[in-house]
Order: sequence, then structure tokens, then C-alpha cells
Amino acid sequence: MPHAVENGEETMRDLTEENVTEAVLDKIQGMGDARTKELLGAAIRHAHAFAREVQLTPEELYQAAMFFTEIGKISDERRHEFLLLSDTLGLTILVDAMQNRKPPGATESSVLGPFYRAEAPEVKSGDSIDRGNTGGDPAIVHGTVKDLDGKPIAGAVLDIWQTAQNGFYENMDPDQPDMNLRGRLTSDEDGAYSFVTVLPCSYPIPDDGPVGRLLYASGRHIMRPAHIHFILSAEGFKTVTTEIFAEGDEYLDSDAVFGVKDSLVAEFVKNDSAADAESYGVTAPFHLMRYDFVLEPGEGPAKPSFSAGGSA
Amino acid sequence: MPHAVENGEETMRDLTEENVTEAVLDKIQGMGDARTKELLGAAIRHAHAFAREVQLTPEELYQAAMFFTEIGKISDERRHEFLLLSDTLGLTILVDAMQNRKPPGATESSVLGPFYRAEAPEVKSGDSIDRGNTGGDPAIVHGTVKDLDGKPIAGAVLDIWQTAQNGFYENMDPDQPDMNLRGRLTSDEDGAYSFVTVLPCSYPIPDDGPVGRLLYASGRHIMRPAHIHFILSAEGFKTVTTEIFAEGDEYLDSDAVFGVKDSLVAEFVKNDSAADAESYGVTAPFHLMRYDFVLEPGEGPAKPSFSAGGSA
Repeated sequence: MPHAVENGEETMRDLTEENVTEAVLDKIQGMGDARTKELLGAAIRHAHAFAREVQLTPEELYQAAMFFTEIGKISDERRHEFLLLSDTLGLTILVDAMQNRKPPGATESSVLGPFYRAEAPEVKSGDSIDRGNTGGDPAIVHGTVKDLDGKPIAGAVLDIWQTAQNGFYENMDPDQPDMNLRGRLTSDEDGAYSFVTVLPCSYPIPDDGPVGRLLYASGRHIMRPAHIHFILSAEGFKTVTTEIFAEGDEYLDSDAVFGVKDSLVAEFVKNDSAADAESYGVTAPFHLMRYDFVLEPGEGPAKPSFSAGGSA
Repeated sequence: MPHAVENGEETMRDLTEENVTEAVLDKIQGMGDARTKELLGAAIRHAHAFAREVQLTPEELYQAAMFFTEIGKISDERRHEFLLLSDTLGLTILVDAMQNRKPPGATESSVLGPFYRAEAPEVKSGDSIDRGNTGGDPAIVHGTVKDLDGKPIAGAVLDIWQTAQNGFYENMDPDQPDMNLRGRLTSDEDGAYSFVTVLPCSYPIPDDGPVGRLLYASGRHIMRPAHIHFILSAEGFKTVTTEIFAEGDEYLDSDAVFGVKDSLVAEFVKNDSAADAESYGVTAPFHLMRYDFVLEPGEGPAKPSFSAGGSA
């Protein structure tokens, strides 16, 4: 008697292709937390639908198990291979898009990536976040933070991070000083901000694990276009986690983690003038990039969850 | 220009909730192996559909990443937590059901579990597979192996394994002799088989990992009903991986891995007669269980894939 009620007890014998999903869903009805029950139930339904659609074989299920086991084995506090998988399969940017439906004009969001560190050093307007062993040309990044009506937002905090020219974030690279290329900057009373950094570069995501193998097998490359990460927060506005990409980068249209949006691409204008460079306290040639952020009103999370991405 | 063709190159900027899935699917078209492409494409579609349906948040994606990372970390050559997850969410038995559509009358299949070992010692009809430190009452298991027409199959190999009374398979238990409660037996010219073992017992699946936590949170127990595993193979017949369950077990209708089928339940009849016991070479009380297997014609795999299950 498949999946019938006998003496008030569910029986679970003789489960078939047709009734097994319902039987499993019945078994999780005791889950206390409603949201967890919803998530688990949907995961079960979609996993079963996947297996039915592709007529998954026992051998393939075993291969999947080995793949996910390797995902876990290669992960540590600094490397999150599951999130890298999510990023490279577009799941992260989908979740990000659903979470951050922005009104027209507001700065769009993008993936957080796994390399954010809280409590980056505070810097003042015009300061450099290049603390040494960075390489590459200096870059001046400046602009404004405004609201949807174009009114300047004073006291907005810009939490900034990027890689050095070798493609590594400082916490993945023993040769860089602690907190290199990270900083927290506050917009002035006109909503303006400015800092000195290094020209960002395109770089590969980790390819020595199962995700790298999957990308290569798919005929994909593993590169991300050059970018600088920002988290912007201000009293009375929604916090936005985003990235600004360098115009002209060859990977803008094929970002391995699908993070690029046209509105987040900005030009790093090269300048060979020694006098101009000196006025910014850098050496020529340098690059000047302007980006104006627009925040929407609301209450953002006090700080970003370390959750939205897995690569960079 | 979201997801359009520019100069012959796909562009992938400005991906939205609506077009991201198609863009990701486009990116895996270079996958060389057609079946892998089919599996990966379906996995992407179902994962995205899941995320859309539940409106997955970045925090929940991060929690999922931590869950799967823990799954990998706790796994080793003897413990396959991902397969345990698949088993306890009914995915394994679904895959098994799709793989093993049996004609009426043929012995049904069930999950293989992770505790199979190839090359178990050969035993002769009537021999015991209890090699010591097993506990519990002796049991005589016997019956026949026949084809769909009721004709005996001589020379069928029965590959048998089960736990001791402490609930452990020998390879998980340093106190049991190597290959305890495992054996390979051959049916005689009448298709008959017989061996001595110990009464099987219900036992818990591992609960010290993420799967155990998930089951407890769902209000489920972690028990499997008492059973003996069999893999039957014979020249000209499909190999069948199955389990025979003990009638009366309190967990028959709530097997943690959904493996029970009515046709696979058999009674272990208790017998207190010292004379009867002596005729089988055991001591009273003992238990007598008869099960007649029926194989369908065809070509089975030479040996079972270690793939169909993750718990027992």
C-alpha cells in the first residue's frame, strides 16, 4: 500500500518514480522553521525534477557526490568553492538581481565575492590605499555620492577593495602588506569622494579545483575583467554592494561570474602629464576614473553579509 | 545591450532575473561531452528555477554553501555524506527506481548503500558468514533463485552483507573480524541457496554531520529497519542490487532512506527447538527466513557500481 495512511501512520513502502517525491515532502512537514521547510521542500522537488528530466543514473549520482565532496574538501576560510560554483553558473548574480531590484538611476549592485574584509583602515579624501608591493600605474578614483534627486549625500561610507597587479587580494598574497588596497572613505559635505589606488587588472578565478575543471570542460575561460569593489552605506539609504569595471577590458563581455553591468563600467583615462600627476601626489603616467554613485532611500543592512559571491 | 551578439561575440552585460539563465546556458555550449552538457544545462536550469521560486537571498545562498562545504569536509573513503543526503531526500531511491524498471514477478531493487565491499569471501551452501563478535541470535537464510518462468537458475552468485548487532558493518567497526557478515554464495543446480548469519537489526545512519542535523530539524528519525543486502548476478540475467527487510521491524514504514518495498519484506521465524537448531549447526533460539529471488533475463553489469546509495 504505497504512501497510504495505516493506523494513523504514514507508510513509506513501495515508493515509485511517481510517488516518491510526495512521500519525501510529507516527511519534512515536521520542520519547525517555516522558511527552512519551504527551502528544503523546493530543493527536494527541483532535485527530483532534475533527476527525472535527465533520467539520472546511479553512476552519475555517484559522480555528483564525488564532485560536491571535492568542493567541500578544497574549501577553507579563504576559499569558497561552492560559492565559486554558484558564481560561475550564474546563480549568485541571479540571487543578487532578485535581492536588489533598483529604481532607475540608482547604482546597480553586483557580486560581493569572497575577498571582502570588514574593518578596513579608514582613509581620508585623497589618501592612497596602495600600501606597497602593488605594481602597475597609479589611479585616481573620484566622484560623488548622491540620492535619486541628485542631492549630495554627506557622510556616506565607501568600503573599497581590489587586487594588486598580480591578480591577488592582499589576504591571498603573503607579499602584500596587511589591508593593502583596502580602505574606508567618507564622502564630504558635497557628497564628493576621492582616493588614490592602482589601475585594476583582469585576473583568473581559482582553476585548480572542480569548478576550474568544469569551466575548462565547458570551453569557458576563467577570467574576470578588471574592477574595484565598493560597498556604499549611508544613514537613510539602502546599502549597495557593487563593482566598477574598467572600460576596454577584454573580458567585460565574458566575465566568468556574470557580474558586469553597463552602468558599472567606467573609463580609467590615462594621463602622461607629470604636472597633473604631481597635483594628485602620484607619478606619471597615471589614470583618472570618475564614478558617481546614486543611492536609493531605505534601510540597508548595517554591514554586508559575507554571502553574495564566491570569486572576486 | 544585454545578451546580444556584438561583432560575433556574445556579450554578457546587464544580465537580469529574466535573461541570466539563458546567458549561462549559452556559455556551456562548448562542452565537449554531450551527456555532461545535458546534465550541467539541466542542473543550471533547475538551480535557477529553485532560486526564483523561493526568492533565494544572498544569506541563504551562503548558508547553502556552508552546508555543502561541511558535507565535503566530513566525507571520506568510508563515509559519503552527499550520498547520505541523496538517500535521505529520496533522490537515491528515485534514481534506483528509474534505473531498475522491473517486470512483474522479478525481484525489485533497492539502494546499494556505501558499505558494499567487493571480493567478499566465497562461502558454500549452509556455511556461516558470522566470523565472530557479531552478537544476537543466529539466523538461517535460504530460498531459491529462479527466472520469470519459475525455472531454477543454477550458479547464480549471491553477494551478501549486513551489520552486526551493534549496527555497524565490519569495515566501520574495529572489533569485528575482517569481512565479518559478508560472503559470496552460489546457487546449486536446483537454484537453491542457504547460509547462516545473525538476525539483522535496525540501526541509525550517521547523525553527527549536516545530514543528521537536517533530519532532526525536520522531525525525522535516523533509523533504518533491519535488513540484509544482496547483489544477485547470473549469466544471461540482469544483476539486481537489493535488500531483504525483517517483517515486524518498527521502522519498515519510515525507513530514513526510503528503501523498503513490500515485496522485499520477509519474516524471520523464531524457533526455540534445540533439535532444529542442531540440524542447522546453530544454537536455539534461532530464526529461519526464506526468500525466493526472481531474475529477469538480460545483461547486468559485471559488478555493481558503487553508486546507488549513501547510508546502508
